[in-house]
Parts: sequence; C-alpha cells; structure tokens
Amino acid sequence: MSVAAEVEAANANYAASFTKGDLQLPPQRKVAIVAYVARALGLEEGDAHVIRNAGGKATDALRSLIISQQLLGTREIIIVQHTDCGMLTFTDEDIRAKIRADLNQNTDHIAFLPFEQLDQSVSDDISLLKESPLILDVPITGYIYQVETGKIVRVANQ
Amino acid sequence: MSVAAEVEAANANYAASFTKGDLQLPPQRKVAIVAYVARALGLEEGDAHVIRNAGGKATDALRSLIISQQLLGTREIIIVQHTDCGMLTFTDEDIRAKIRADLNQNTDHIAFLPFEQLDQSVSDDISLLKESPLILDVPITGYIYQVETGKIVRVANQ
Repeated sequence: MSVAAEVEAANANYAASFTKGDLQLPPQRKVAIVAYVARALGLEEGDAHVIRNAGGKATDALRSLIISQQLLGTREIIIVQHTDCGMLTFTDEDIRAKIRADLNQNTDHIAFLPFEQLDQSVSDDISLLKESPLILDVPITGYIYQVETGKIVRVANQ
Repeated sequence: MSVAAEVEAANANYAASFTKGDLQLPPQRKVAIVAYVARALGLEEGDAHVIRNAGGKATDALRSLIISQQLLGTREIIIVQHTDCGMLTFTDEDIRAKIRADLNQNTDHIAFLPFEQLDQSVSDDISLLKESPLILDVPITGYIYQVETGKIVRVANQ
C-alpha cells in the first residue's frame, strides 16, 4: 500500500473527530520558524508560520519569510537546525556527481546548501537575514536541536 | 516575552521527559511530503521527510526533494495545499508594490508563487515534478486540505 493510501485512511479518522477551531490565517504568535522540528518547541498549530526544508536553511526560505512578514504579519524569526543532520554528510560536488551518474543530468545550477559546521550554518543564516534589506528588523534567534537529548541549544551571533 | 524565550522554556519541559527513540536519518516510510499540515495526515515524526513553505509549492521545494530522494531514499511524493491559503489573496505585482512602498526595495527577481486556483496549483506542481528529469519516477499524489472540515481531497492529474 502506498503511503498516499495510508494517509487518506488516517485523514478520514482525523476528519471524523475534527472540530473547527478558530485558526486564523495570520499566525497568532507572529513568529516565523525555519525548522526541522516543531513539536519540541511547544508551539501549537496556528501559533507560528513553520517553514521546513532540507537543512532548515534560511537561504532557501527567503520567499516564504518575506511573505510571512509582509502578508501574515510575523515579527520574529526562529531558526532551528539539528544534530545528525544529513546536510553534514555530503558536498555539492558529491551530490552532483551522484545525479550525473544515476540520472545523467547536470545540476551545477543548484546550490544544495550542505554545511560542515552546524554552529556556523545557523550563525551564517542569522547574519544573512539580519543583513537582508528584504527582511524587517525583527528579533532573530538560532538554535541547534540535539536529537540525542531533545534539547535546543542557542547559537551565538554577533 | 519574545516567542524565543517561550520556546526555550517549553523545550526545557520537552527535553526533561525526552526518551531517545531510534529515529533514523532516512524517513522510515520513504515518503517526502510538501505540505502545510502534517498532523492531519496521521504521520509520526521520522515517518516522512516534511517540507513546508508558503503555499506548499513543489516549485520551491525542488532542492529539498532532490536531496530527499538522492540521500534520504524517499520514493514517494505527496503534495498538500490548503483552502483559505494566503497565496490566493495577492499577486506578484501586489507584494512587489508593497515591498517597494514599505522598504524601497526591488523584488522583481523573486517569484513569490501566488495562485488563483487551488486545484490548478496542485495539478501544476504534480506535472512539474513528473516532468522534471531531476526527480525520480515515483508515485506523486496531490491533495487539498480543507481547513473547514479537516478533510483532504485528492486532486486529479492526468
């Protein structure tokens, strides 16, 4: 059975006990989160605008963050990346060579955004957003989620 | 109190009762989901590689989807967009004019990916992935999540 069929069955159960809340379009806590994990942050559905991508990279979330601020009114950004992340295990050259070998396609035009150091990756992402003229001057905080302990550890950024 | 401070407090509670599971790096169900909602799909943390962005657009998830297939081994894609979506409420021209007025910045180089019809948006995203030489030939299913009922409705794609 495909996962799609399972998802349809699970959703039928979910919808059967669904009670329409008052979820409003703008995230109630006015925060945008670029993250791998959400449950560990104690936020409920509708509290935050959650953006997830491979690595939790702000560089690949710029379109969503601008929309979040301009149209959904979020006024804080939290970045969460995590230990044991797949993005620590390869380079652009590695994945491009694999795609060339497997699919015979060139992907030199895609920056896959792997990184070697988690702290540096989070700090770089904070800096990029702070310096972007397209992002409002709002609080930006970065964390590393430790998959071994469930804890988030704040990353310093000057 | 900033949301970051609240998140830190909530995470301290979360981590205090954290028991290390055997979450492995590759998603166990080998599925990548481009979605706005995850809870309504009955999937647990670690089952799927969840990608979230403004609109749930596959066009803005291509980097993550390629990594998901090439490095995390996912072999199915599910796209979920939702009713009452903010992306139905503006055009590229609207948001570019707002950013010009508020921040005096030009964003003609950014495609914000709004859409007028949900069905068309999901179907277009499925087509784009099916036709991309960078995406493996795997099952791709698209749904619209109805925020009024909690139900997902499958979108036809020929």
